[in-house]
Amino acid sequence: MTVLSQFFTGNEAEPVAVENSSGKGSVLLVCEHASQTLPARFGTLGLGSDVLQSHIAWDPGALAVSRLLSKSLDATLVYQRYSRLVYDCNRPPESPSAMPVVSEIYDIPGNADLSDADRYARTSALYIPFHDRISQLIAARDQTVLVTIHSFTPVYHGKPRTVEIGILHDADKRLADAMLSHAGGSSFKVERNAPYGPEDGVTHTLRLHALPSGLLNVMIEVRNDLIQDEKGQRAAADFLHGLLVAGIAAEAE
Amino acid sequence: MTVLSQFFTGNEAEPVAVENSSGKGSVLLVCEHASQTLPARFGTLGLGSDVLQSHIAWDPGALAVSRLLSKSLDATLVYQRYSRLVYDCNRPPESPSAMPVVSEIYDIPGNADLSDADRYARTSALYIPFHDRISQLIAARDQTVLVTIHSFTPVYHGKPRTVEIGILHDADKRLADAMLSHAGGSSFKVERNAPYGPEDGVTHTLRLHALPSGLLNVMIEVRNDLIQDEKGQRAAADFLHGLLVAGIAAEAE
Repeated sequence: MTVLSQFFTGNEAEPVAVENSSGKGSVLLVCEHASQTLPARFGTLGLGSDVLQSHIAWDPGALAVSRLLSKSLDATLVYQRYSRLVYDCNRPPESPSAMPVVSEIYDIPGNADLSDADRYARTSALYIPFHDRISQLIAARDQTVLVTIHSFTPVYHGKPRTVEIGILHDADKRLADAMLSHAGGSSFKVERNAPYGPEDGVTHTLRLHALPSGLLNVMIEVRNDLIQDEKGQRAAADFLHGLLVAGIAAEAE
Repeated sequence: MTVLSQFFTGNEAEPVAVENSSGKGSVLLVCEHASQTLPARFGTLGLGSDVLQSHIAWDPGALAVSRLLSKSLDATLVYQRYSRLVYDCNRPPESPSAMPVVSEIYDIPGNADLSDADRYARTSALYIPFHDRISQLIAARDQTVLVTIHSFTPVYHGKPRTVEIGILHDADKRLADAMLSHAGGSSFKVERNAPYGPEDGVTHTLRLHALPSGLLNVMIEVRNDLIQDEKGQRAAADFLHGLLVAGIAAEAE
């Protein structure tokens, strides 16, 4: 057995999923926290099944909203098939959150005392293929507007959150500004860089793929209690579709 | 341009070199710091040509000694074709030494304030392919004794070093012990875990590829003033050949 062999068993899906790869829209959707699935070799990471279904394992509803946007925008969608508890693809290897020992109020026993080999295997098997693939896709496209889709828990460390949709940006706020200027008067409570911002390290994917080459970009966070069912997912996706279309059109002028 | 495009220009060699890939010996030689070459896109990293030829850029003589051992042991040899100043393949991405801002007494301007994208590109283009390849090679072999070959500067931070050859190990010291027990009475001044030891983070390659699966392993350091020419390289390689053969035989009993 070597550092990489047996990371996945023979019948497990490869980690990087691409949908609507021939989509003609300029938007490239990325969903890093799409799934709560753990590769079989990790068992349960020492966690109960309730925790493994909770927001610390994935962003509930984010993939469903991403798929609706992929359809309405004719956008290619890239998502990670495995849980961020094994490797959080929106964090670099040097971040403590990449392979978290603690997430919110939960210790993660299977992430305690990881060896160099443990860390290497997760980085090589999950993180690198994900971002290499995004890089290759962008290189092959005429133009790309990078949009990452996330969801957040309505109660964090015991405190309720009132924000419903966050429009997040790093140093390049062009698209976020344009979207926020169209968000007034909606039924959603929309905020800039909430409930997280770039200071929390959440804009890693934007920093990798958009900022160096000046692609228009934004990160979207939706409170996950609003997108638990198809109706809620549809309402959020319709609203975000409008904001994205208006924001991109404003920036194209 | 994306995070990975244009890392290498069209006529640059791929980073991972494998020699004597059909070697029948049990030893697999690894030389992480074989070369002072910088990929063209990095220019000089802001350094003078004297510094770019010095030990901070590579381990002078280590590849030559590795090649002699590859021949005498009929061992497969894996080495990195680019300088450790861009990525030190004997360090994980979270180590400050992986993409060093300072090395010994030299600031490295081209490594200051690296962005997430800069770090990702180096990790993905240099570090991951190197260790994935070693992992694949080991998986395809019946048995492997992992031996990494390094050299060190005779004067460090202004202080001369008297040790000539270091036999280094991490938690598994079987092969190092056996080699050290055969090193007495030689003309070389041989020491255990000198001038570095596992506490300096130098056993990363051993931790990745040997410790998890229990492969016999050792890291060898040779003072680089002794291996500046072919005669010195031959003398060091002959001595190390004897130590390795005796050490491996003792462990096989």
